[in-house]
Amino acid sequence: MPAPVIPQAVQNLITELARLPGIGPKSASRLTFFILRGQMQAAQALAQALTSLHQNTSLCVTCYNITDVQVNPCPICADPNRDASIICVVEQPMDVIAIQRTGYKGLYHVLHGALSPIEGIGPSDIRLHELVQRVANSQVREVILATNPSMEGEATAMYIQKQLHATGVRLTRPARGLPMGGDLEYADEVTLTRALEGRRDM
Amino acid sequence: MPAPVIPQAVQNLITELARLPGIGPKSASRLTFFILRGQMQAAQALAQALTSLHQNTSLCVTCYNITDVQVNPCPICADPNRDASIICVVEQPMDVIAIQRTGYKGLYHVLHGALSPIEGIGPSDIRLHELVQRVANSQVREVILATNPSMEGEATAMYIQKQLHATGVRLTRPARGLPMGGDLEYADEVTLTRALEGRRDM
Repeated sequence: MPAPVIPQAVQNLITELARLPGIGPKSASRLTFFILRGQMQAAQALAQALTSLHQNTSLCVTCYNITDVQVNPCPICADPNRDASIICVVEQPMDVIAIQRTGYKGLYHVLHGALSPIEGIGPSDIRLHELVQRVANSQVREVILATNPSMEGEATAMYIQKQLHATGVRLTRPARGLPMGGDLEYADEVTLTRALEGRRDM
Repeated sequence: MPAPVIPQAVQNLITELARLPGIGPKSASRLTFFILRGQMQAAQALAQALTSLHQNTSLCVTCYNITDVQVNPCPICADPNRDASIICVVEQPMDVIAIQRTGYKGLYHVLHGALSPIEGIGPSDIRLHELVQRVANSQVREVILATNPSMEGEATAMYIQKQLHATGVRLTRPARGLPMGGDLEYADEVTLTRALEGRRDM
């Protein structure tokens, strides 16, 4: 058998990049040759950023959002100007970034997942117990259940509702309806039903 | 000013990934949080592959294709079963991989670019001189000019034709025409013109 045409170092990087979501073998190959054409320093900078990612981050002891390893509790939990009486529960750290853009001034709780019997993710696999404890031990008045509008997200919100019902804390969900810029014609049945149910006086 | 919500290590990786072609800030952010959710070992494996990419590869002394740093000349140039009388000239190492899939049995010459006055790429910036030298010093009978069917690729092929004309070596270009699976209706004017010009008896 003749020796492979693609050097091992090139094949290794293609293989590693193709493990990332949304990057197939073709994209991985294009990215690899792009990096190879570039300066060695650029490849090193990316390698360095990857190496420090886990090393320099940890989870906030209060809200479980990703934080700098030397800043714990995280800047949001430590900010005295934020409204500590509201907690917004989200599935992932990226959701915090999205909600921050709205100007929301309360605190967060990051579950790091959603309940999914199919994927074998139960209540003890996500930060649910920590949320219940936190609500019990604090002056929280409202918990916004901002899990994703998916099967798993809805199931997780319902589970939390049962767990927190006895505490008497106010539980809310973000409104469902037509997204801005969307086309009524293309809205799915469930979204349109919810939008009509939640209609408001002008 | 409050502390930034995104930890520095996370922001660094987003920035580095967003430098790659086809990866915008949103994709870079999604990839970063995917890597962060994964094992530290997976991030290290990718970092390691990036670090060794430039270190463990070099250019073949004969054809200038990418090769393992310890295998030079490259496996294609060193293979006695290949037809050393034909050289296929391509712009990039990825083109070699594409042509290898066709079962082509000759040798290659990788230019690492194409002539482009707009981008300031002249004959001395790509491996043109090396090609002329190589053809002069070998028993090559045919040179296939498989540069891209773009302005730059065509200009490069014409430049090489002028340089090699005096050697008497046979110069060819891959055929132009309709791509397989393509739709006649969507073929552009130039492609269709070339396809009709190059028509063949059935």
